[in-house]
Amino acid sequence: MVYLDYNATTPLAPEVIEAITDTLKEAWGNPSSSYPAGLKAKNVISSAREQVANMVGASANDIFFTSGGTESNNWILLMAVQLFDFYDSAEDNNGHNKSSRVPHFITSNVEHDSVKLVLEHFKRKKIADATFVPVLHSTGAVDTDEVMAAITPNTVMISLMLANNETGVIQPVKEICNKVRNLKRCEGETKRIYLHTDAAQAIGKIGVDVRELGVDYLTVVGHKFYGPRIGAMCAVNPSKDTPVLPVLFGGGQERNFRPGTENTPMIAGLGKAAELVCKNLHRYQTHMEDVRDYLETQLKEKFGEGVCINGKFPASHRLPNTCNVSFTDQKLKGGEILRKAPSVQASVGAACHSQDRPSHILISCGVPESVAWKALRISVGRETTRQDIDQALQELESVFRES
Amino acid sequence: MVYLDYNATTPLAPEVIEAITDTLKEAWGNPSSSYPAGLKAKNVISSAREQVANMVGASANDIFFTSGGTESNNWILLMAVQLFDFYDSAEDNNGHNKSSRVPHFITSNVEHDSVKLVLEHFKRKKIADATFVPVLHSTGAVDTDEVMAAITPNTVMISLMLANNETGVIQPVKEICNKVRNLKRCEGETKRIYLHTDAAQAIGKIGVDVRELGVDYLTVVGHKFYGPRIGAMCAVNPSKDTPVLPVLFGGGQERNFRPGTENTPMIAGLGKAAELVCKNLHRYQTHMEDVRDYLETQLKEKFGEGVCINGKFPASHRLPNTCNVSFTDQKLKGGEILRKAPSVQASVGAACHSQDRPSHILISCGVPESVAWKALRISVGRETTRQDIDQALQELESVFRES
Ligand SMILES: Cc1ncc(COP(=O)(O)O)c(C=O)c1O
Ligand SMILES: Cc1ncc(COP(=O)(O)O)c(C=O)c1O
Repeated sequence: MVYLDYNATTPLAPEVIEAITDTLKEAWGNPSSSYPAGLKAKNVISSAREQVANMVGASANDIFFTSGGTESNNWILLMAVQLFDFYDSAEDNNGHNKSSRVPHFITSNVEHDSVKLVLEHFKRKKIADATFVPVLHSTGAVDTDEVMAAITPNTVMISLMLANNETGVIQPVKEICNKVRNLKRCEGETKRIYLHTDAAQAIGKIGVDVRELGVDYLTVVGHKFYGPRIGAMCAVNPSKDTPVLPVLFGGGQERNFRPGTENTPMIAGLGKAAELVCKNLHRYQTHMEDVRDYLETQLKEKFGEGVCINGKFPASHRLPNTCNVSFTDQKLKGGEILRKAPSVQASVGAACHSQDRPSHILISCGVPESVAWKALRISVGRETTRQDIDQALQELESVFRES
Repeated sequence: MVYLDYNATTPLAPEVIEAITDTLKEAWGNPSSSYPAGLKAKNVISSAREQVANMVGASANDIFFTSGGTESNNWILLMAVQLFDFYDSAEDNNGHNKSSRVPHFITSNVEHDSVKLVLEHFKRKKIADATFVPVLHSTGAVDTDEVMAAITPNTVMISLMLANNETGVIQPVKEICNKVRNLKRCEGETKRIYLHTDAAQAIGKIGVDVRELGVDYLTVVGHKFYGPRIGAMCAVNPSKDTPVLPVLFGGGQERNFRPGTENTPMIAGLGKAAELVCKNLHRYQTHMEDVRDYLETQLKEKFGEGVCINGKFPASHRLPNTCNVSFTDQKLKGGEILRKAPSVQASVGAACHSQDRPSHILISCGVPESVAWKALRISVGRETTRQDIDQALQELESVFRES
């Protein structure tokens, strides 16, 4: 068996398992309790908060633990709607017509469903409007000028993933943040456009720093960087520079912004996973890039013009671990290849999408439908070796030979 | 150290830790992936779903995993608002005036903050109206007739905790469900009144069966019954008898109703914890009741008229593990007692509330403020022994002697 789907999920690092297990046994107290069993748990959470903050160049105060990336993305987008309503009702007094205004979002057409479907839901329910800026077929990334041109007086947030889960293409988040920060807003326009990046796929693979990027909000997803199945919402300098509003109500945890008794063991694991990224990112990155590049060289060597690497554009950067490849000379579709080669654990795209449809992400990147049907997403990890690649390629070759 | 705060949280059962650890190591695949690593995780989740369902007399289909009780409660209440809006806009066509109608909730005045604060938020934002039916001073429970009398044409949900976290008093959920099911609704009234019970504190302590209770929705919280810090939302025969609507959007997990890559290890742990409850509830219950009753006998023996057991009413049932006691003869307040007796890990009420205020739950039950100030909540667990009780009482006695 070769696992080559590290963008779908990663195993947990042994150090992370240890942190979780220790916490399950030793720090099970309620972090809100003031006796020793509670304080112990509280301390575990404080350290983890520091570690997660360090990983993304934030302060501990900026980190709010959540149940995962889906919750973080939903939360941030819902928050933006509330922020708009709040400022908009203030503007009412100046004679603006509130009822005709709904907040406006800008995003790309290659976002994860936990952004895309939220915004589509907002549109359907007339809660908000959204512009899905298409990525360029020449870069797989949005054009910064096109994003800027999409801004309206009601634009409240730009939400762009940092790296795409299927192609690995890195979006120009930093450039857009820069341009937006230099915008002067006029009267009757939202005072400020908030910037969000879903860094689910970028963390642990490339350097991610909220201040360097210039974002207000950032989504952290543990299980993409050898951590557990929880996440975090990072708001840079919350309540001062970046407003935070709760969408859940309850027992006051996470400074009242995200209540619910804390999942201490998973939080400890997230902290440990973050610490590992802080320490070893360079090593992980160069190793994954080496193995991924070896894979792509081998693919070209074995299949020549019969393969097409999707999402590899001279003008954009890619994650070091991701290879999206179409076997254009073969009759088999991606899903069929995988079913015939069960020992190659790879995918045709996001795990939560059907294998029996061409990826809409690839199509959005300009990959012809016939080529998209034949695509595999191969994503390598920290421990993937060249031998794993050789083995997977042998398996694929024998599938093609028999078909 | 004696831990006597099992209503705040419980340690994890060793079997639960084992299930979590095994899953962390062996079933880390993405449950949506169709290769072996994914299928393995998917199977773990299916078994856990069965186990959680069995524990509450539901079907596997009725169970939706969530990040915890706070999320489950918020979800259910938000869902009810959406259900009302949905039916209400249908009624619009019959000439009813939509804008003047908001959904109405009925609840008690002793609910957990994850119900109480949601409904208060709805009221403040004019999203919904809510009646907080006060518990009787003679029973610590709501009066069923008072609940029925609170019903309005817009009542969409009755949400009542099954057992109170501070007093342990069991609410007449079954009786209310029965009465509500026999109600005939008139034209212009909500077609149906949904019934929700927050069973956070009841599960693992008394038998809980959704069909016997007659509820539509039930909240499950893992860390109150030796399970992990996640939970579940149970909707009885969803989409057929009981509507379910998502409040989060994303990758389609949990049949699209609660997206987000599943927290497989914690789900496995929740399943194991549920299995233990199914197998051993009777033993847990009789043991806890024995130790709690021993505690109360000893309290009376040592302090006589100087203690008052709050929430023990002849006309209501109580959880077998909970003793809420005020040391009325002493000068010290509850919080002060605990600070002077750090080896007794108990509380003055919900962990998420300040120690430096009398519990509003006790006051709602008719406990005079001066008595409420002096209260301790002592809640025992599966492994608490009479010796633990003796030790805690000795410690308390020496604190009183010195004060
Ligand atoms: C880009 C991106 N964002 C968000 C998520 C959502 O994470 P989760 O499913 O863990 O909530 C994922 C992973 O599935 C992802 O790839
Ligand atoms: C009655 C009740 N409901 C709900 C909850 C909320 O659970 P959690 O904080 O784990 O989300 C608790 C526990 O704190 C509780 O006692």
